[in-house]
Amino acid sequence: MTITPEAPEPVVTATDPIRSSNAIPTPSAPPPDILRCAYMELVVTDLELSRKFYVDVLDLVVTEEDENTVYLRSFEEFIHHNLVLRKGPVAAVAAFSYRVRSPEDLDKAVAFYTELGCRVERRKEGFTKGIGEAVRVEDPLGFPYEFFYDVEHVERLAWRYDLYTPGALVRLDHFNQVTPDVPRAVKYMEDLGFRVTEDIQDGDGTVYAAWMRRKPTVHDTAMTGGDGPRMHHVAFATHEKHNIIAICDKLGALRRSDAIERGPGRHGVSNAFYLYLRDPDGHRVEIYTQDYYTGDPDNPVVTWDVHDNQRRDWWGNPVVPSWYTEASLVLDLDGNPQPLVSRTDSSEMAVTIGADGFSYTRKDDEDMPEWKKGEYKLGAQL
Amino acid sequence: MTITPEAPEPVVTATDPIRSSNAIPTPSAPPPDILRCAYMELVVTDLELSRKFYVDVLDLVVTEEDENTVYLRSFEEFIHHNLVLRKGPVAAVAAFSYRVRSPEDLDKAVAFYTELGCRVERRKEGFTKGIGEAVRVEDPLGFPYEFFYDVEHVERLAWRYDLYTPGALVRLDHFNQVTPDVPRAVKYMEDLGFRVTEDIQDGDGTVYAAWMRRKPTVHDTAMTGGDGPRMHHVAFATHEKHNIIAICDKLGALRRSDAIERGPGRHGVSNAFYLYLRDPDGHRVEIYTQDYYTGDPDNPVVTWDVHDNQRRDWWGNPVVPSWYTEASLVLDLDGNPQPLVSRTDSSEMAVTIGADGFSYTRKDDEDMPEWKKGEYKLGAQL
Amino acid sequence: MTITPEAPEPVVTATDPIRSSNAIPTPSAPPPDILRCAYMELVVTDLELSRKFYVDVLDLVVTEEDENTVYLRSFEEFIHHNLVLRKGPVAAVAAFSYRVRSPEDLDKAVAFYTELGCRVERRKEGFTKGIGEAVRVEDPLGFPYEFFYDVEHVERLAWRYDLYTPGALVRLDHFNQVTPDVPRAVKYMEDLGFRVTEDIQDGDGTVYAAWMRRKPTVHDTAMTGGDGPRMHHVAFATHEKHNIIAICDKLGALRRSDAIERGPGRHGVSNAFYLYLRDPDGHRVEIYTQDYYTGDPDNPVVTWDVHDNQRRDWWGNPVVPSWYTEASLVLDLDGNPQPLVSRTDSSEMAVTIGADGFSYTRKDDEDMPEWKKGEYKLGAQL
Amino acid sequence: MTITPEAPEPVVTATDPIRSSNAIPTPSAPPPDILRCAYMELVVTDLELSRKFYVDVLDLVVTEEDENTVYLRSFEEFIHHNLVLRKGPVAAVAAFSYRVRSPEDLDKAVAFYTELGCRVERRKEGFTKGIGEAVRVEDPLGFPYEFFYDVEHVERLAWRYDLYTPGALVRLDHFNQVTPDVPRAVKYMEDLGFRVTEDIQDGDGTVYAAWMRRKPTVHDTAMTGGDGPRMHHVAFATHEKHNIIAICDKLGALRRSDAIERGPGRHGVSNAFYLYLRDPDGHRVEIYTQDYYTGDPDNPVVTWDVHDNQRRDWWGNPVVPSWYTEASLVLDLDGNPQPLVSRTDSSEMAVTIGADGFSYTRKDDEDMPEWKKGEYKLGAQL
Repeated sequence: MTITPEAPEPVVTATDPIRSSNAIPTPSAPPPDILRCAYMELVVTDLELSRKFYVDVLDLVVTEEDENTVYLRSFEEFIHHNLVLRKGPVAAVAAFSYRVRSPEDLDKAVAFYTELGCRVERRKEGFTKGIGEAVRVEDPLGFPYEFFYDVEHVERLAWRYDLYTPGALVRLDHFNQVTPDVPRAVKYMEDLGFRVTEDIQDGDGTVYAAWMRRKPTVHDTAMTGGDGPRMHHVAFATHEKHNIIAICDKLGALRRSDAIERGPGRHGVSNAFYLYLRDPDGHRVEIYTQDYYTGDPDNPVVTWDVHDNQRRDWWGNPVVPSWYTEASLVLDLDGNPQPLVSRTDSSEMAVTIGADGFSYTRKDDEDMPEWKKGEYKLGAQL
Repeated sequence: MTITPEAPEPVVTATDPIRSSNAIPTPSAPPPDILRCAYMELVVTDLELSRKFYVDVLDLVVTEEDENTVYLRSFEEFIHHNLVLRKGPVAAVAAFSYRVRSPEDLDKAVAFYTELGCRVERRKEGFTKGIGEAVRVEDPLGFPYEFFYDVEHVERLAWRYDLYTPGALVRLDHFNQVTPDVPRAVKYMEDLGFRVTEDIQDGDGTVYAAWMRRKPTVHDTAMTGGDGPRMHHVAFATHEKHNIIAICDKLGALRRSDAIERGPGRHGVSNAFYLYLRDPDGHRVEIYTQDYYTGDPDNPVVTWDVHDNQRRDWWGNPVVPSWYTEASLVLDLDGNPQPLVSRTDSSEMAVTIGADGFSYTRKDDEDMPEWKKGEYKLGAQL
Repeated sequence: MTITPEAPEPVVTATDPIRSSNAIPTPSAPPPDILRCAYMELVVTDLELSRKFYVDVLDLVVTEEDENTVYLRSFEEFIHHNLVLRKGPVAAVAAFSYRVRSPEDLDKAVAFYTELGCRVERRKEGFTKGIGEAVRVEDPLGFPYEFFYDVEHVERLAWRYDLYTPGALVRLDHFNQVTPDVPRAVKYMEDLGFRVTEDIQDGDGTVYAAWMRRKPTVHDTAMTGGDGPRMHHVAFATHEKHNIIAICDKLGALRRSDAIERGPGRHGVSNAFYLYLRDPDGHRVEIYTQDYYTGDPDNPVVTWDVHDNQRRDWWGNPVVPSWYTEASLVLDLDGNPQPLVSRTDSSEMAVTIGADGFSYTRKDDEDMPEWKKGEYKLGAQL
Repeated sequence: MTITPEAPEPVVTATDPIRSSNAIPTPSAPPPDILRCAYMELVVTDLELSRKFYVDVLDLVVTEEDENTVYLRSFEEFIHHNLVLRKGPVAAVAAFSYRVRSPEDLDKAVAFYTELGCRVERRKEGFTKGIGEAVRVEDPLGFPYEFFYDVEHVERLAWRYDLYTPGALVRLDHFNQVTPDVPRAVKYMEDLGFRVTEDIQDGDGTVYAAWMRRKPTVHDTAMTGGDGPRMHHVAFATHEKHNIIAICDKLGALRRSDAIERGPGRHGVSNAFYLYLRDPDGHRVEIYTQDYYTGDPDNPVVTWDVHDNQRRDWWGNPVVPSWYTEASLVLDLDGNPQPLVSRTDSSEMAVTIGADGFSYTRKDDEDMPEWKKGEYKLGAQL
């Protein structure tokens, strides 16, 4: 193996290169010790239809269900659920839930968010079945975050190959959130104990998105610039790439291929193989596999140029406009949708496609083949 | 395994449903017994650049080369080559070459095409290195077809896993030709001994494309409706789907992702997993894997509705306009490009996307999700 | 790609190197034009248990079934069945069935086998459901061979990805037969129109096994030297290697891993990835993927040295003794088991493992690592 | 997805079920905060031959090399190396090296091991190129353990798909150590901050092996019962299962298949897909993919019955005797091989195979098919 000198385009830096001019003050109280993203509570408008999508099409495992709620988990999970579908009037996200290291971390969460001036609710009996004592907050960015330690253990189905389907989802991998001011969001998340692994910027220092982790993968959640607070997607992992292809093939066989919004493809950011689906309410679900280990404290941060056409799809396949513009509402602790705040920084879609934007495959090479030109006009024309 | 009653959309018929109103008369001479598509001779304008693409990027095996020509084969091939790159002034195809069962089939080829009134040239010493006696013709559709039996055997590298790369190409799979009148082309190819395996039609009987085989795969060549004669693509097979993904990943690493024109994806027609690339001259190359056995004489013919959005991509991903409109010139036996004849039947692109066309995912279901609408406007806007 | 000079061990020759000193005379009647191996009729002693194995574990598709019989097919098949399980008193094979090109080929089959002095039975209504007129014979080697053209068409499930399981079997690939005198068997099969693609010999010209094809894969059937006539195995194909691994994983989850007799592994002969299972009656089933195209008349014949330890497993993993010694009885046309004739030539097991045999990884290199020595003592010790 | 009641055989418990009657006292000094296993330093007797194996066959990346040493890393690594090959007179392991969270953890390591009465050596300049200040100890079990934080960063080649080979190794996954008294070793490792994820026991409470982790995979190292201290193996991860198969195929093509000692297969313990190789000195290398997330503090511990035939190979394929009996010497800090202490507890090989042992596929089912019986006699016969 001889390594040729040609370096990949993204810049690798020793530390997170994002600075906020509009920072939320760091609380003096220490943050809770978060282990990982654990589950999302989704409000869906037609439970039967949603159940079909998540259970019959995506083959998530039903841990428990009742008339209004379905509790789902992935094949390698041993906690009660990774996804809750709850019937409700407005499609939205009721909670982004993280598991913490110990019961005492709930006290820390309360102190941390109280000091931030956030609305905080603690429930001994938890907010959903299978989860014990938990804290929910409306965080400084407007997102409903939950923290819990106590949870019901269920069978880890990792070895149950008699139950696997070709597209088996084995882990919850991450959340992705839409927020107007990415550097501000990153600073708050770093205070909460997260670390940046990759980000997208332009030459002027505008940050378009940042990926942040607790567990040693590329992310537990990402902050995507846009009108927010909104939920961009929730992502489940498969073992191999062919599992993701199998999901596409099954959607085709079911004549539900229009649930595929983008991909499959290879990400530049994260290096993972991906697919984006839309559920019956339009909630976006990513299927994801094979990012890399990030657990060292000096894990190199990868910063991508927003104009690098391979940042979001390593093969240069176009990101469809809806992927940039559509996202799910999030609820406050009373169950009402949070109002949106508009992004004032540049929009990634605007600066990369259409009349006002540009993308390159090779830096300083303006040549674009004929067959690619049509694709990048698309944004401006819509 | 219980089979649910929901049938796939395409119609399966016992026999080829294509009839030509403009048929070329069937010769009384019997056709040569064709084994399979064997190689394509490509004229390229920059041999060094093309060699980089086919050898350094796609890892085809160099059997032999000189200043003006590179002879390439796939890993499981035992004949001298599957692709010839020849330096020339105009990017074009010099030959679509088929192997026949015996030397005597060359006599049959001469008689068959002579009766058709075609220009025929027979060379004892062959037209390229490694190939013995061969017949070249300008066929009734204007394509340069070659037939040969004698060929130099070389090492079949099937077992040489020390040489395999992640995207190893193991067989030449098929050609694809552009011609204005598909039913007319099909009728002639059936006289030549080919059988239709799948086709695309509309309710009025307009035929947009047809796939035809000699070896028992979905095709040795296909006829695609459009201004012709032109070469749409040449296709190589890999063993598995991840091999195709590896080619995309490598193109990204080389900052050559703009060589990817369409895909990867799953075809409806053929059920194969695919990727379309464009070489430095714009010649289109498909990478293809896992179609099905078609060798029985009553192999069911699958007819797809041109408005079925899953016919060309089973996942409903959009076909980029260039894929419909661009193709390579073909040469006559003097090496001059053949003039094009325009298609007068409807264009598949026009009837499926844009203002004048429509596509459905589910027949009789006009509902298209928001995130899909943008994609299908594209055609009309260009 | 630069090809290093080191050649693989097997010898490649232009034509079949097998000669019989004990040949069955070639009939003057031409053989039927065989398309492919089409189905096997298996007699099983406990239909419920066998159904569990083939349907619940291996996920073959039930076309039709009644109290005594289950008709199964693979996902890409369009004829009624590839396997018949019929309840009976003695586990055995009732028919190795081949599809022929036309109804007229049945007349040819009758004439061919009549001239060979074989018992021949022709039935207008066929011998199993779903198959029309058919001819069954007791062939010169004692095997029950069937030939048919008429068959009921059923849905080809190739596109039904909603039904696929992780280990989906997509095609019947081949049979494998045990017979005492391999050269004699090969000569008769060549008269029947088969061609040798690979074989195993020693330096003295003893032939241990030969692979023969009609369709252009490595084989439709193979002749394995041993006491016969017996059925060694029937083989189904998957699309990819991970499908075969999924079958192993599922057997483990069901605590049925002892159904795995040998593998998974890579064959030297055929270059395919393989797995051998034993069904509840001990009938051997191979799962197989990715051999190579053999359809040219001058397809190179590959002859392996019986002492080459990579001939049957490319990774040198030991062949378990039962694989050599155990096989299924075959029935005559009255349903009685055929008596066995002993092999008089050397046994492959004896010459390769144990006190009287030897195997090498590298020719002329007698060095065997410590960790391999135990494995090759095994044969003699049993 | 309906979950049938049949549970897998291993017993799942909330906490580590291993107790030592012979424990090393827990130091009062806190242990260093270990991030992960980081590299192994191997002494090899023929550097050229070893380089061929690790670089030309396994395609590890050379970060740096000189006359006596080769520094190798995996594709996704950003620290200087994961493996050091150093030329020396006796094949052995010079260091099992772990990365710690901060420079201060070196002080903790010194204090921790000093209190344990171990020999400790701290070097400002490190013990190998690319690594800064480091501490090496002769641990209470006799193993040469290293701890470091400072390290040279190198290019993470994760995105360099132009360099990937079919069997690309992407991460160092774990070590495996042989030690006579597993419970004693586990207790010490728990004091060092490790957690048990899985283990193998019998009904009498004898512990045969235990797996322990710092990073949230099944292990950073495992303790295997046997005469020790010895190194059982070092393991590298691939992305997918086919990558492991590609390594086997390449070894076959190079006529080095006798480097394969065991596998490929699926582990029961860890649920990973595996392969064991032996390098030119007999050092054992595992290739490994797809275990599961273990990062929660209450991660269920899986205890396997030593008689469960699927514990080490989920498919029931036999473990070859050499895998149990052979392992590499380890060196003290002066570079002399550590003397071995014999295991006095039962041997896993003896209790599972051969005349004195037994294995089951299904608990309480003594039926073993004919074709499996030969395999399990093997152990006693050697």
